[in-house]
Amino acid sequence: MLYNHYCDIIRKHYERFGFVPLRTPLVERVETLTSKGGEAKEIYGLRRLMASEELVDESKLALRFDHTVPLARFVVQNSGTLTFPFRRYSMGPVFRGERPQDGRYRQFDQIDIDIIGRETLPLLCDAEVVAVIASVFQELSFGDFVIRINNRKIFQGMFEDAGIDKEQLNSAMRAVDKIEKIGKEKVIDELVEIGMTSEKAQNITKIMGSSGTTDELLDMLRNMDMGELFAAGVKDLTEVVQNVRALGVDEGDFHVDLSIARGLDYYTGTVYETRLVAHPEIGSICSGGRYEELTEVFGGKKFPGVGISIGLSRLFGKLLKTGIIKGEKHTTAQVLVLQLDKQFMMDYLGIAAELRKSGVNTEVYPEQKKFDKQMKFANKKGFETVVIMGEDEVAAGTVIIKDMASRKQKTVARQDILRCISA
Amino acid sequence: MLYNHYCDIIRKHYERFGFVPLRTPLVERVETLTSKGGEAKEIYGLRRLMASEELVDESKLALRFDHTVPLARFVVQNSGTLTFPFRRYSMGPVFRGERPQDGRYRQFDQIDIDIIGRETLPLLCDAEVVAVIASVFQELSFGDFVIRINNRKIFQGMFEDAGIDKEQLNSAMRAVDKIEKIGKEKVIDELVEIGMTSEKAQNITKIMGSSGTTDELLDMLRNMDMGELFAAGVKDLTEVVQNVRALGVDEGDFHVDLSIARGLDYYTGTVYETRLVAHPEIGSICSGGRYEELTEVFGGKKFPGVGISIGLSRLFGKLLKTGIIKGEKHTTAQVLVLQLDKQFMMDYLGIAAELRKSGVNTEVYPEQKKFDKQMKFANKKGFETVVIMGEDEVAAGTVIIKDMASRKQKTVARQDILRCISA
Repeated sequence: MLYNHYCDIIRKHYERFGFVPLRTPLVERVETLTSKGGEAKEIYGLRRLMASEELVDESKLALRFDHTVPLARFVVQNSGTLTFPFRRYSMGPVFRGERPQDGRYRQFDQIDIDIIGRETLPLLCDAEVVAVIASVFQELSFGDFVIRINNRKIFQGMFEDAGIDKEQLNSAMRAVDKIEKIGKEKVIDELVEIGMTSEKAQNITKIMGSSGTTDELLDMLRNMDMGELFAAGVKDLTEVVQNVRALGVDEGDFHVDLSIARGLDYYTGTVYETRLVAHPEIGSICSGGRYEELTEVFGGKKFPGVGISIGLSRLFGKLLKTGIIKGEKHTTAQVLVLQLDKQFMMDYLGIAAELRKSGVNTEVYPEQKKFDKQMKFANKKGFETVVIMGEDEVAAGTVIIKDMASRKQKTVARQDILRCISA
Repeated sequence: MLYNHYCDIIRKHYERFGFVPLRTPLVERVETLTSKGGEAKEIYGLRRLMASEELVDESKLALRFDHTVPLARFVVQNSGTLTFPFRRYSMGPVFRGERPQDGRYRQFDQIDIDIIGRETLPLLCDAEVVAVIASVFQELSFGDFVIRINNRKIFQGMFEDAGIDKEQLNSAMRAVDKIEKIGKEKVIDELVEIGMTSEKAQNITKIMGSSGTTDELLDMLRNMDMGELFAAGVKDLTEVVQNVRALGVDEGDFHVDLSIARGLDYYTGTVYETRLVAHPEIGSICSGGRYEELTEVFGGKKFPGVGISIGLSRLFGKLLKTGIIKGEKHTTAQVLVLQLDKQFMMDYLGIAAELRKSGVNTEVYPEQKKFDKQMKFANKKGFETVVIMGEDEVAAGTVIIKDMASRKQKTVARQDILRCISA
């Protein structure tokens, strides 16, 4: 229930920004999945259990491992009918060939949004992604959060300025992405190994570690002269921050963070990570960025995009574990109508029908059992209210309404039940 | 959007009756899936694409083909901690190894409810299933529907009365289940082949074809003497009908139908089918029944259940095809704020933020383009309202609000925008 409740909140805010739900199949062609970003070992292929009945060649089919690759395939296949920029969200299971363990699942839910342009995509979209995520986590109420924003062009500019070859750019990016995991010194070692001077490498990690307000960091960057690409990154980042503010995002909910690089090769501009302030140990709860070339492997036109993903299964597990959220109730119903005497069944069912009609989720205890047994059931499943109606009450035209939290009960006229219980 | 909207309605009504969402994995062990009801040829097994990295033995894993078998596995594994009767709903994809074609999908959504008892399950639950489905289809508004109810004990009683062996009961049930498809004469032939006299077989098909009101049919059955099992079936069916009425289900929404048998072997009592009155060609849109022995293959205790399933993917496809529902809009947003001049970006984003905060789903056209191009975008995606603010409006502190359906527009003060547009 709680899980669905969170999904509903996320959906609501995605739709508040005009994102449409897109439901692509869980099964894609192997060649689609392996064409970009998918390492074959992580993918589950399909096979038919009865080999004699080969209706279709399942060896060509496999389970999706994220929502991004199926989106790229969908956009290219339907580009003629879609209206661009195309903004969609996708929620549902993805599969990875992992040994199930703490925080790693074979099947887990991702909830993604992406905005895809044809040929170009306005930079405003990069700010909207921040606004929608801030809006989601505001309502989810997991505590204070910060969406950390950076731009990869700043890194690329610094790498170019340090004389790194085009072919080595991805390696350099992967090196700086590890700074939190392996530390500053080891990152410097890796950058030097790729071909940078120790001085340049040190300067890059120094910039990555800069602290200050978002405006102080942007000012600092604007005063640095590290070439065109660097300057373009700073300009983009500045504009994104301006638009994020114009979209009404609270100043405390986002921050420029020059250490954010993101591991995936396909990001080309803005990148995001989101953390819970009180729980840094959970890591990023929502990450993403802008990509320019994701669909190129499918041929033809360019469809740049920007997107972000909430790994809800993993997040939900961590939130339960840290106690930020509490476990589930065992009923979706608020009210339990007891069945004290089968001869009054019509009354019990009538009360339930009346409550349901006015929007109150209601169960009827399904058989005549001892009062204690029925109350134990009510406690165990966590009903808020119990309706009790025995021989005396039927004769008097009343019902007893018991509040399970306060353990208080009151006797009211049968026809007043809706006035005493509301959804 | 529409699809999600229907899912939400179904969920709401399931929860109104206290059903809790249960999310079992899409992947189960092959032996679980093949233990009951699953024909191996319909099941998709998994395999790892990189055979060298065998972390787990995927050959033992396969994709679920329904929600019922995973439920049975779940109940047996968790019987110690569940509170019975356990009522859950499950929505999500199931997979069958079919060649995709009209009305047959490789992946499709089922939305199931089941109530599971330990050792016994009160007959009241059979009526609740009818009430919840009636409540769902009332709000879905696909037109008049009828939930057709029967009880398999009535058939079993008639088969016993006609001298059919225990081993032949399932064959006889499958024969009568086909009456709509193959016709009365062929059913009689099959029943005779199984070992019935022609007279008995004819009498059974005559009873199956009986017309009349629910009460007339129940009266007719009560006056027949066809043994204990038959009488038990009639008694159960009568009680289910009584309780369905007490639960407030409209008389027109359900009907006893003595021709309903359902194909699956595991049903043992009440069976259901649901049809749209104006569209019999769609077939049953929601079917189910009571089963007593589904979990026995997993060993130990008996967990009888009653459940019903809506095949939403198939139903949705058919409804679109028959024109009962119309296709999707291309945005979840109601309002589009045009971007006439980039220098007023802060105003556009501010208006969007204000509308979103008060619950209005809003998009901002993401770049400065020609007015006509932006209006074409608004038309194509189906926005209801467009907000227009150019140099004149900014100077005057106003905005133009255009209603896309009526094509009428009005100029209002900037601060009155929330009074003119509401969610």
